[in-house]
Amino acid sequence: MIASRIQDGPMQNARVTGVLADFLVSSRWEDVPHDVRHAARRSILNFFGTALGGSRDTAIAGTLTVLDRFSGAREASVIGRRDRLDMLSAAFVNAASGNVLDFDDTHHPTIIHPTAPVAPALFALAEAQPISGAALLHAFVLGVEVECRLGNAVTPWHYRRGWHITSTCGVFGAAAAVAKVLAFDAGHVVWALGNASAQSSGLVETLGTMAKSIGVGAAARGGLAAALFAQAGVTGPAEPIAGPRGFATVMGDGANLGAITQRLGETWELRANTHKPYPSGVVLFPVIDACLELRARHPDVRPDAIADVTVEGHPLLRERADRPSVSTGREAQVSAQHSVAATLIHGVAGIAQFEDGSVNSPDILTLRRRVRVVDRADTPVEAAHVTITLADGRVLTSFVAQGRGTPQRPMSDADIEAKVRELARHGCPGLDPARLIDAVWSLDRAADAGAIVRLAVA
Amino acid sequence: MIASRIQDGPMQNARVTGVLADFLVSSRWEDVPHDVRHAARRSILNFFGTALGGSRDTAIAGTLTVLDRFSGAREASVIGRRDRLDMLSAAFVNAASGNVLDFDDTHHPTIIHPTAPVAPALFALAEAQPISGAALLHAFVLGVEVECRLGNAVTPWHYRRGWHITSTCGVFGAAAAVAKVLAFDAGHVVWALGNASAQSSGLVETLGTMAKSIGVGAAARGGLAAALFAQAGVTGPAEPIAGPRGFATVMGDGANLGAITQRLGETWELRANTHKPYPSGVVLFPVIDACLELRARHPDVRPDAIADVTVEGHPLLRERADRPSVSTGREAQVSAQHSVAATLIHGVAGIAQFEDGSVNSPDILTLRRRVRVVDRADTPVEAAHVTITLADGRVLTSFVAQGRGTPQRPMSDADIEAKVRELARHGCPGLDPARLIDAVWSLDRAADAGAIVRLAVA
Repeated sequence: MIASRIQDGPMQNARVTGVLADFLVSSRWEDVPHDVRHAARRSILNFFGTALGGSRDTAIAGTLTVLDRFSGAREASVIGRRDRLDMLSAAFVNAASGNVLDFDDTHHPTIIHPTAPVAPALFALAEAQPISGAALLHAFVLGVEVECRLGNAVTPWHYRRGWHITSTCGVFGAAAAVAKVLAFDAGHVVWALGNASAQSSGLVETLGTMAKSIGVGAAARGGLAAALFAQAGVTGPAEPIAGPRGFATVMGDGANLGAITQRLGETWELRANTHKPYPSGVVLFPVIDACLELRARHPDVRPDAIADVTVEGHPLLRERADRPSVSTGREAQVSAQHSVAATLIHGVAGIAQFEDGSVNSPDILTLRRRVRVVDRADTPVEAAHVTITLADGRVLTSFVAQGRGTPQRPMSDADIEAKVRELARHGCPGLDPARLIDAVWSLDRAADAGAIVRLAVA
Repeated sequence: MIASRIQDGPMQNARVTGVLADFLVSSRWEDVPHDVRHAARRSILNFFGTALGGSRDTAIAGTLTVLDRFSGAREASVIGRRDRLDMLSAAFVNAASGNVLDFDDTHHPTIIHPTAPVAPALFALAEAQPISGAALLHAFVLGVEVECRLGNAVTPWHYRRGWHITSTCGVFGAAAAVAKVLAFDAGHVVWALGNASAQSSGLVETLGTMAKSIGVGAAARGGLAAALFAQAGVTGPAEPIAGPRGFATVMGDGANLGAITQRLGETWELRANTHKPYPSGVVLFPVIDACLELRARHPDVRPDAIADVTVEGHPLLRERADRPSVSTGREAQVSAQHSVAATLIHGVAGIAQFEDGSVNSPDILTLRRRVRVVDRADTPVEAAHVTITLADGRVLTSFVAQGRGTPQRPMSDADIEAKVRELARHGCPGLDPARLIDAVWSLDRAADAGAIVRLAVA
């Protein structure tokens, strides 16, 4: 049946899903390079941080109200809270928490936030049945690989069209990861991806509203369910990805199918995964870096001594972030004026600096009126100049060639740890994340991966 | 915020979701014409039949295995079975059962199967909290209206692109129906539709596999959840349908937005809803009608006395249904040869005639080799000629100008009742559906709509 279908015509020649399935089945943990394993641990650690930080968001409270009412056996933890839910619902809520602050990881080529849909599906399962840390990490690496390769194939058309790529590709990543950890044969992997394809959804229109979290949560839940349905014998099409009415055809436009299958096991998408140092738009990273550097260099300068701040950069910086008047945390995330003022005043650009309350505090309001954004054509988009003129006439300048958190200048492991601590303080103040951090770094050697989630609850 | 957004530019001028929401909120049961109410009852009755018939399908067993494990409080019935599930999971399984046989209703302009995603969401809710029959019927009418108007707006591009329109539009229909029955204000209706938009999915590639049922089930479950999330304060975008990255923009192509908002409350999509008399492709309806007519007229003719059968019709009939060699029930549904042979032998073209076992029975195999399909250019697509040549040289002919089950020649209420009885025998043999049938016809007057579902369980 599969053979006849593939040979039917030129539209149906591509064998993509089967190739992915064979790769998943044959991949061994020993085949995963050490830097990729480390990138996986970093991504999972960063995820626990953003999920802890997001766990008190009103969107999470809303979804939890509904899903708690319908929960079956409460086998799985809700990160940052005391609630427990059945594993499908826990996967939903934890994925939503991980992504709700827009502070989670970013796969640079696609802007997928890869960990949020995949890790929660695996950890929920790991609380219900024994899964070793190495098995979970391996499945995570492969789930992200599937998710991001699908994203590569449909980029850039897919996101521009209006698909929230984290959700649309995430459901496949979660299904693939769960299929691996449950040791499916290739046929069942294809069914799992087929059941995922029936649920691939998520619209960019929902960004900036809580409905975004419905899409991301549904991706994690749907991917986990897709694999469990396949395990229970729910069949799918032979080619749910590249078939004539499959994912890449319908939700792509001349998708680059080779990007899905070429060099599997040789290249690893987790190497292109990045972690945000600040909960702001990426164009502002070098600006914030420069402000932090100036403040460290001149600890004596008080905000009211600042007469004027000039931010100079690539025209894209001005286009995206020249926003002198903002009133919500979400708007402030893409405001150079707010980011500069908050960073110079607080000496940190963390989640607290981008809350609604912070945005309207009088000292920040006063300083941000003195911030101007100016084009400087010779500046690369990764760089920024910040110049402070003091009331006494002194001029302080800083140039950052490459913002932190980019592929070229990744956050250090210690930076990610500090981020997790800050986010835990923000979203789950009673929790000391020290044991969680240690447990993620040693996840490869853990006998019971599920135990780690219980270090991330209130 | 809403106003500024709508005035931002030409792409964003359309106000569609708000218009639908206002219509939903202001609609009164008294405004729904009597023929539309009756069409709603017919659709719901037909749905209970197809769900009873589908309830033993292997796809349903597979989904049930998984969802049963994660069920919360078992407030809702699974049609055709003894299982009970939480309302979200019951909505999933009952929607999948209603659609799995491809024997459910068809909204002619879009080929949406409108009832499967909408009715199960309402009935599941009605088992958990008191809802009158009139309130449920009213919400059902409006849910189908939203679902099919969205379908009208994106037809024909949407289905041709590869979207399984029953699932993609069904999630909105379920959300709208639940929003109405829960008496949301317009703002909450918009949020419910936004939460639905984040979950709109379903690919044509999955048709012919069990994964189709995952899409249809997810639409009912997702729509119900979308409304409950909105009730719990989960916000969505102002224009999830017509926004620049909303449903009609992303999943349509130059969508006809006027089809969504024009003449609301004046025209009713349920009037274009049809019910299949046979579980076969629609092009075969007049062929089966002709065979039934011939057999009734010549009850003495034994199958082995038939030398040759010629089916003549519009070229589309041959293109779609000239399939002399088939081996599965699914293939047989679009085979003129099988349909003719089975109908002439059994005197009925019901669900049993399209099961795998029936397809390979020796008497049907023998007769179908004698059936030919021939173009007859002057035949309308709704018509067919069937000519039987007997071994003794006699020639018997029948011409059907319009197959049953089309908008022009709808099934009678009695026909639908008979279909429900047959499907109940097939899928739930212990059940006498007499009380269920009576209860659906008098649904307007029922104090407790949820009680009706319990007449449709094993």
